[in-house]
Amino acid sequence: MKFTCNRDLLAEGLTIVQKAIPNKSNYPALECVLIDVSEDLVLTGSDTDLSITYQVPVMIIEEVGSTLVNARVFSDIIRRLPDLYVTIETSGVGGNISINSGKSHFELPTISSEQYPKINFINNDERLMEMPAQTLKSLIKQTSFAASPDSARMVLRGVLIENSGGLLKFVAIDGYRLAVKTSPSDYEEDFRMVVPSKVLNELAKIIEKSENNIRFCFSEDEKQVMFFNDNFSLVSGLLKGDFPDYKQLLPKEYKCRMVTKNQVLIDTIERVSLVINDDKKWFVELTTYPDEVFICATGENGKSHETVPAEISGQEILIAFNEKSLVECLKAIEKENITINFSFEKGPCVISSDEDSSYFILIMPVKHKSR
Amino acid sequence: MKFTCNRDLLAEGLTIVQKAIPNKSNYPALECVLIDVSEDLVLTGSDTDLSITYQVPVMIIEEVGSTLVNARVFSDIIRRLPDLYVTIETSGVGGNISINSGKSHFELPTISSEQYPKINFINNDERLMEMPAQTLKSLIKQTSFAASPDSARMVLRGVLIENSGGLLKFVAIDGYRLAVKTSPSDYEEDFRMVVPSKVLNELAKIIEKSENNIRFCFSEDEKQVMFFNDNFSLVSGLLKGDFPDYKQLLPKEYKCRMVTKNQVLIDTIERVSLVINDDKKWFVELTTYPDEVFICATGENGKSHETVPAEISGQEILIAFNEKSLVECLKAIEKENITINFSFEKGPCVISSDEDSSYFILIMPVKHKSR
Repeated sequence: MKFTCNRDLLAEGLTIVQKAIPNKSNYPALECVLIDVSEDLVLTGSDTDLSITYQVPVMIIEEVGSTLVNARVFSDIIRRLPDLYVTIETSGVGGNISINSGKSHFELPTISSEQYPKINFINNDERLMEMPAQTLKSLIKQTSFAASPDSARMVLRGVLIENSGGLLKFVAIDGYRLAVKTSPSDYEEDFRMVVPSKVLNELAKIIEKSENNIRFCFSEDEKQVMFFNDNFSLVSGLLKGDFPDYKQLLPKEYKCRMVTKNQVLIDTIERVSLVINDDKKWFVELTTYPDEVFICATGENGKSHETVPAEISGQEILIAFNEKSLVECLKAIEKENITINFSFEKGPCVISSDEDSSYFILIMPVKHKSR
Repeated sequence: MKFTCNRDLLAEGLTIVQKAIPNKSNYPALECVLIDVSEDLVLTGSDTDLSITYQVPVMIIEEVGSTLVNARVFSDIIRRLPDLYVTIETSGVGGNISINSGKSHFELPTISSEQYPKINFINNDERLMEMPAQTLKSLIKQTSFAASPDSARMVLRGVLIENSGGLLKFVAIDGYRLAVKTSPSDYEEDFRMVVPSKVLNELAKIIEKSENNIRFCFSEDEKQVMFFNDNFSLVSGLLKGDFPDYKQLLPKEYKCRMVTKNQVLIDTIERVSLVINDDKKWFVELTTYPDEVFICATGENGKSHETVPAEISGQEILIAFNEKSLVECLKAIEKENITINFSFEKGPCVISSDEDSSYFILIMPVKHKSR
């Protein structure tokens, strides 16, 4: 194997495939990046559950071949090479890989590429769903935070992606919070899948600034999904199990409705909560009055209170939340004005914004003694 | 105690005195900031070895007094207050302190200020040494990195500050490295003191952007030093013991002299060393040739080499260094060109720049087998 390519493009590809490569593994081949040169240069990283491949533009291919090299060491070196171009070459099976760039020369040990796990993704189906990368990113960011990545119930570690009746819907739930975001869909066939939230978060990072479309499709056995564009592909296993029927969690009626400036509310809740160290033990309390909401907290460090102007309709309500959990929901909304609909003191609240009817978050209050 | 002041000026003062306040102490009063209001508002933080006081401009003093409040909680709150002005008030001895700013209200527990350790710094002497803050900062930054903050020999934890013959000299030594920086002095009286490097590093942060002069003086018993200007004062204990006579460490003659671009040398050494994980076990080797220096390393991750153009005079030398230790010295020089004078393979090297004759660093090579 011998090829020459641009250092920065190679480094970019390594950054992406490394998202699938574990720092430490009992199986050293998994700590490696697979470098495969045939017609193109293709990098692969995998932790077996998640696999990412990325195609790097290459300038000269002198000899095809493939090898495995420790991903962290290799990418640290590539990133710091002195010249914009790098020539990479292996010497025989199981030999070293040599890296030459400017006056720099490195030799690293390799592992035979035969020791790499096979990534079997079979899809003879022509049907692909396609959407702009930034739409996909929003769908992920606005829901995946509400998944429960450590849950013993595997299906709650994922985000439900459901296509039905011209709507694509992302849903995540962790027992205390539920986030639902929809987007118009022109893909005709209905489907449901649950993708690990961890995988979607990595995907969101990869497509962070992409202006292209992202496509996705299922494997023939429907156990895997592949997200891809012209440069990269990401293959992940799907989570099995019955995803909770979240619709039955939604309150039938609301006792109180509040509209206020989102950033002011976030700042105030964070400030008032500075008297709290242990948010498992202490909470922040909201009381709605005709033109304002009174926010107070008592914690290990002292007591605090502050009011925020708000449009309130319905009955007065006194309700308590875990500060971090509530603030995370408010931040996810990303709109100037926020609406919170309260059902009752111990019942779920629905957070949304009149500026975006395609998105809502449900949050449960914490149990507390009324003052 | 009751006063009103500017939130940002108070926050700035808290940042400075917090540098002396331990995060955790068995004696809760030491985790507090002392707030003292008489003619002025003065904040104090102390870990008993190091004490910092800072005077905050105050707008209205309604009632004098003093109290202790947890520094971390208090400053987190002050920093996030919604209004530019804050009114602070205590209610009786051992009661709460209340913080009011805009619509925000906080109440925090306090400790009686009588529980705070007394800071005794007696100086009836009128003699003060004075220098620009930025000169002092350079003297500290260019030497304190070579001190040995964990040394069992207490005096090596500090920086020797010596005034003699019209020169102020800062010297630090850790057994492998020695850094010496001098500055012209118009203070006539000779003195020698050893100040903990930890204290000097905090002082350098406090005066980071200061354009004022900093003065310093000794306590009457010569056990403490005070650095101060109009706003703040920092009192630290001095280290006792005989500071090593570093002059006898300096080589009598040199076998080889090398002049090269400092940043290129730093980048190359850092790059070549990417094959090393454990720098206690592995090292970087330099070999001088007529017009270049050859730099190579072997480590857990592989092998590497690279050359850097250099003006070399004298005999060829092959010498090995601990990478991090050498790079730290090179970075301290902060000049475009660097000169390294090598004595012999296992002997000390002196690093300096022709652009600054007031500064040099001595570094010992590591022991290694010749190739």
